[in-house]
Amino acid sequence: MRMAELSARSGVPAPTIRFYLREGLVEPGRLTSPNQAVYSESHVRRLRLVRALLEIGGLSVEAARAVIAAMESKSGNDFAVLGQVQYGLRSPARRSGASESTGDALAEVDALIARQGWRVRERNPARQSLAEVVTTLRAIGRTEILDAVDDYARAADELARREVDELLGIDGEEARAEAVIAASVLGDAMFSALRRLAQESALASRIAPSN
Amino acid sequence: MRMAELSARSGVPAPTIRFYLREGLVEPGRLTSPNQAVYSESHVRRLRLVRALLEIGGLSVEAARAVIAAMESKSGNDFAVLGQVQYGLRSPARRSGASESTGDALAEVDALIARQGWRVRERNPARQSLAEVVTTLRAIGRTEILDAVDDYARAADELARREVDELLGIDGEEARAEAVIAASVLGDAMFSALRRLAQESALASRIAPSN
Repeated sequence: MRMAELSARSGVPAPTIRFYLREGLVEPGRLTSPNQAVYSESHVRRLRLVRALLEIGGLSVEAARAVIAAMESKSGNDFAVLGQVQYGLRSPARRSGASESTGDALAEVDALIARQGWRVRERNPARQSLAEVVTTLRAIGRTEILDAVDDYARAADELARREVDELLGIDGEEARAEAVIAASVLGDAMFSALRRLAQESALASRIAPSN
Repeated sequence: MRMAELSARSGVPAPTIRFYLREGLVEPGRLTSPNQAVYSESHVRRLRLVRALLEIGGLSVEAARAVIAAMESKSGNDFAVLGQVQYGLRSPARRSGASESTGDALAEVDALIARQGWRVRERNPARQSLAEVVTTLRAIGRTEILDAVDDYARAADELARREVDELLGIDGEEARAEAVIAASVLGDAMFSALRRLAQESALASRIAPSN
């Protein structure tokens, strides 16, 4: 298909697609003349993924490029692909260079990891992200959700086990890497929205119980 | 305390504090001479909250100002305060104007809300955010986490009930509004980090089970 159709199919305006092409987020099309290219279904799919990373995940173009490179590297090992994709995603807590955490908070995180019996590499950036959240909650003196951190961890554990089971059932490395991105980036957005709905509902039923 | 001490206590550089003052994110200090002001403990606490909104929550200065205005409005009603704070927070899915959702996705979200028995106002922005995530997951053809959306919703519900119980036990409206912000913004970051750790651990135990 030509650029106009690619734009219509993906819902991404042509100038934006050209920007993604220049930035290496999307593979070039096949040239049919010096200034005409044709695109395939895989371009439509990639464009939707790029939009998800940038708009829903809030990633920078640079971070999205790193994630896509990890996805394409096809290292032949699910564990490595997960690591590359996950570690390429900045977690919400790192979005604009949050303050460094104290060693105390990191020790608290490691104690939680041990209590949950989790097997996590020391360089998993989520360790540091969580330590930053802990530090901030203590700094603003709001530790209510921190007191419940083991409940949150158990809920995360249950969802993660299910996600990994689904993930390992998917054929094809690129498809599995896409699923990791979906579960990470879109899963965060999904859970955040669900929490807001559940919070409003829980408060409504406490303050104005229905009959 | 003077600006230098406020900066040291809050960990925020003085030029940044001056920027927050100009932007109305932090109340002015008390003037002791035409160009000297003194600040109190409440300024330290507010600065930490502003940092949490901007750095961990990834909010724009404008959005942070709206949240703080909601927090200060003291409407005298927990439900209104929660709504003002929650609705002032852009959810991750809205961060840079994600594509509009189809009515189908919104109907799917409303069906989920009904299945969960949630009492949610139609204008809760999380409804639209969730519909956008649903639309994107379908567009990239990765519906695994969507198939498990009721499990996610139940986990969110359980955590939200606990959060609301904690919330209603807090004395003082401003403190309760702060707790709402902490549970929303920092809670999202906390849960996201926990999911990443749990995902790595779940994959490790599936791929390389320990003895």
